[in-house]
Amino acid sequence: MAEARQNSDVEREMTPVLTDADVERLADMPALVDAMIEALRTKARGRFVAPPRHGVEFADGSLVFTVGGTDTIAGFRAYQTFDSGVEDDQQIVCVWDSATARLKGVVLGNRLGALRTGALGGAAIELLGRRDAKTCGVIGTGRQAETQLLAAAAVRPLKEVRVFSRDQANRARFAAAAESILGLSVRPVDRAQDAVAGANILICATNSASPVIEAEWVAPGTHVTTVGPKAKDRHELPPELAGRSEVIATDSPAQIEAQGGGHFLAGSGVSGRLRDLADIAVAEKPVRSSKDDITLYLSAGLAGTEVIVADLLISLRRYRPQPRGG
Amino acid sequence: MAEARQNSDVEREMTPVLTDADVERLADMPALVDAMIEALRTKARGRFVAPPRHGVEFADGSLVFTVGGTDTIAGFRAYQTFDSGVEDDQQIVCVWDSATARLKGVVLGNRLGALRTGALGGAAIELLGRRDAKTCGVIGTGRQAETQLLAAAAVRPLKEVRVFSRDQANRARFAAAAESILGLSVRPVDRAQDAVAGANILICATNSASPVIEAEWVAPGTHVTTVGPKAKDRHELPPELAGRSEVIATDSPAQIEAQGGGHFLAGSGVSGRLRDLADIAVAEKPVRSSKDDITLYLSAGLAGTEVIVADLLISLRRYRPQPRGG
Repeated sequence: MAEARQNSDVEREMTPVLTDADVERLADMPALVDAMIEALRTKARGRFVAPPRHGVEFADGSLVFTVGGTDTIAGFRAYQTFDSGVEDDQQIVCVWDSATARLKGVVLGNRLGALRTGALGGAAIELLGRRDAKTCGVIGTGRQAETQLLAAAAVRPLKEVRVFSRDQANRARFAAAAESILGLSVRPVDRAQDAVAGANILICATNSASPVIEAEWVAPGTHVTTVGPKAKDRHELPPELAGRSEVIATDSPAQIEAQGGGHFLAGSGVSGRLRDLADIAVAEKPVRSSKDDITLYLSAGLAGTEVIVADLLISLRRYRPQPRGG
Repeated sequence: MAEARQNSDVEREMTPVLTDADVERLADMPALVDAMIEALRTKARGRFVAPPRHGVEFADGSLVFTVGGTDTIAGFRAYQTFDSGVEDDQQIVCVWDSATARLKGVVLGNRLGALRTGALGGAAIELLGRRDAKTCGVIGTGRQAETQLLAAAAVRPLKEVRVFSRDQANRARFAAAAESILGLSVRPVDRAQDAVAGANILICATNSASPVIEAEWVAPGTHVTTVGPKAKDRHELPPELAGRSEVIATDSPAQIEAQGGGHFLAGSGVSGRLRDLADIAVAEKPVRSSKDDITLYLSAGLAGTEVIVADLLISLRRYRPQPRGG
């Protein structure tokens, strides 16, 4: 009974299963940013499938599913909430080819999520930021700060990066690693204000409950990305910065609407100006009208885009097979 | 930036990913039947989590999720409906340890589903069938017939198996393979009636839209399992057999209730007698009151049990590591 099945098993190519190490090796940030811009365009055209997340409760936590896809692929990300203290939790992303019904591949780990959020941040810089941006300030030294910076460097000709976090050792470590990866000057600074001063791009990616900068520090022409907390009672940016911004955009208006009055910009009079990055991606004219515009990107992590990133990594794998013994 | 992460990657044991070949190698039917009986008991005690399946529609089909778990594990099965013509579609089952939040493992393929359904069929025979059952009739030669037979042989001291299907080559192939695997006489027969005659256990696992046997062929004392179609307009068993059965049970009353008037026993006056196999698994007295009772098991494939089976296979893997070069 088993023989026929085993033969078909051998004949069929094994389903690729990527781990964090594979994701690290395959991640090509310029390609990921392009894929996110394409996903945003697909969304603007109404062909991006990404229903609200679906959770199932167990005694000690939940399993959560975010499903996403396009006309050609379908997939999902699943993760657990059993122990939010586990830093290295293993999420799973699966992608099917919807034309052939074939499972294209599986990605395990937590690296993909941050890369995806970073690539969307890169798309925001590409769509909102000044083309000649050369200096990037980074506040925060976690994995979100890292992928946002990688994406910024992928879309703009950065010459200098300045990084601040409260922990001196963390910012020294982050700066040394980033300098080596990006091949440009990355300088740890002692004050948040020194990271902001003169930055054409400012990346805020902290877990801070209170603003890490003051609105007036931000110079005209700056593009600001906020990845960290954006709740009424817990936000890393001062709401006043939104008032100073000519353009405010997000990758997921739906996720911000879901927060309702709990969002840090609710009731500030600026939330009516919030634009969907997807609409900007298909707009005929650039949204930035002047070199001096301040643009503000509220990163939400558009659900469903993990599937797009996973599909790209699985495709890249064909062209960069695993090194022997690796 | 990447170094710290890569170290933690190395320190952590890789998440096991099982394919159909691993499942085939690890599947231990007696252990699987025991696990299903335990799952049924957990369900009877109200501690089995298995909400209704959740589907997300795309242009060409859907992704479907069945979530399941207990007090200690949580997981899901995901599959697609893009092309029902794909025999070898790759499903995925994931299991998390809900105490540690660790992803215990992933199972890819389609072998697990049939093994699970078979193991539940074995549990039904254990809970309903005569202890001295020696002869098994099988109608159908697909993978469901195979796993049902493996499970029957795991719980009862079979001496002889007779198999019928319309295709002579299929039944000859099935009989030869089963004889080799089970180490007992498996005889292909030319008529369905010859598979039924004298069988203590009768397994019907066809895709037939109309009854493959007549009710009066079934002798007193027989346990009958039906895996195939059970719809009003499409059923492999005659509804009259239910009238002749002293006990009618299913692993998923919820799935049968969901069919409502579309079920082949709806309106027959016997559906009120339908019992939950889970309740039978915790009953103090055997449900069979006489050697001559006919017992009928309507196999539904209780959602959530794939997670239990996956967890068992992942655990067994620790004790049977993959052979070198395998």
